[in-house]
Amino acid sequence: MARWESDAAQRLQYAAMTLFMTRGYDDVTVAEITERAGLTKRSFFNHFTDKREVLFAGAQQFQAAVVDHLAATDEALVPLEAAVAALTRAGQGLASYGDSAKARRDLIASSIELQERNLVKMASLATALAEVLQTRGTPIRTATFAARTAVTVFTVAYDDWADNTTEDFSAVMQRTLTDFRLAVGSPEGQPHAG
Amino acid sequence: MARWESDAAQRLQYAAMTLFMTRGYDDVTVAEITERAGLTKRSFFNHFTDKREVLFAGAQQFQAAVVDHLAATDEALVPLEAAVAALTRAGQGLASYGDSAKARRDLIASSIELQERNLVKMASLATALAEVLQTRGTPIRTATFAARTAVTVFTVAYDDWADNTTEDFSAVMQRTLTDFRLAVGSPEGQPHAG
Repeated sequence: MARWESDAAQRLQYAAMTLFMTRGYDDVTVAEITERAGLTKRSFFNHFTDKREVLFAGAQQFQAAVVDHLAATDEALVPLEAAVAALTRAGQGLASYGDSAKARRDLIASSIELQERNLVKMASLATALAEVLQTRGTPIRTATFAARTAVTVFTVAYDDWADNTTEDFSAVMQRTLTDFRLAVGSPEGQPHAG
Repeated sequence: MARWESDAAQRLQYAAMTLFMTRGYDDVTVAEITERAGLTKRSFFNHFTDKREVLFAGAQQFQAAVVDHLAATDEALVPLEAAVAALTRAGQGLASYGDSAKARRDLIASSIELQERNLVKMASLATALAEVLQTRGTPIRTATFAARTAVTVFTVAYDDWADNTTEDFSAVMQRTLTDFRLAVGSPEGQPHAG
């Protein structure tokens, strides 16, 4: 992507976040976002398919990073741990968002249509993880459950981490995985069936 | 709901399913559904907020049934098993759909917008289950994980069961729960942390 294109996308994202945080997601129009960013509506729709997407601009790169990490993960790890490790490594890149993580999380929670889009992105992420696990030799059923579980752990961990973005994301993920194991009756430290 | 209202909703659902199965979900309009059912567009929108909802007409009643079953479930069951038991009992009512379960599943898989609506319904179901678990004294984190896991098990089991609706839904749920436990490293039969 050329430098000016990336700048335009970032200006649009920044303008959108500022307006959403001030006036709420629902009341802000695409025209207002582009006006604030000093760009045209056409420019907006070159970068984002709709108003919702401006809050999910990083989702595709994030998913690509997770897939790359998983493909490179130690083959000896059981599927759930491999998927969690890949999400953890990709998630550490989110630290650069800093305080906007909390604002973004709260915006998503404030709007049904943003929650819907978030569900779609997380489902897509789980499907992508399950596909990579299958290429590692994991049966489809195990891959599906491990991938969906890892994404559930990630979403809960991310929402926690957004409250305190100075904390190491890896530590939040491990704590959340432990919480998950306790919740579904799989105490940490016991042998895993793989 | 008055008898004639229920009949209208059922006629619209039947007409919609018939058209969707013949020509695909995307190509069928609400006008065509209402024409086939011998009703007006106004009648359609009295029953369904949009074209997608015609395939999710039972979701609200299903969720209500699951919540009722969970509230009445043995307090001694750990959260995940209680949630799975409630989904199993409510799911047995789905047997009346018979062969249309497979057609419905395949229609949902064929359309991104139907997949999105399905994700929203399943997320709503998980939220409702987590709330009931909390009223039983389960901490919020455990309730969230148990509810989301139970719904994941249910969605996988339902897709399996749709291929063979003469099979006992309860047996499919138990088998799927076992698959889940193996996938995430929690073999059946060991003590659960609650």
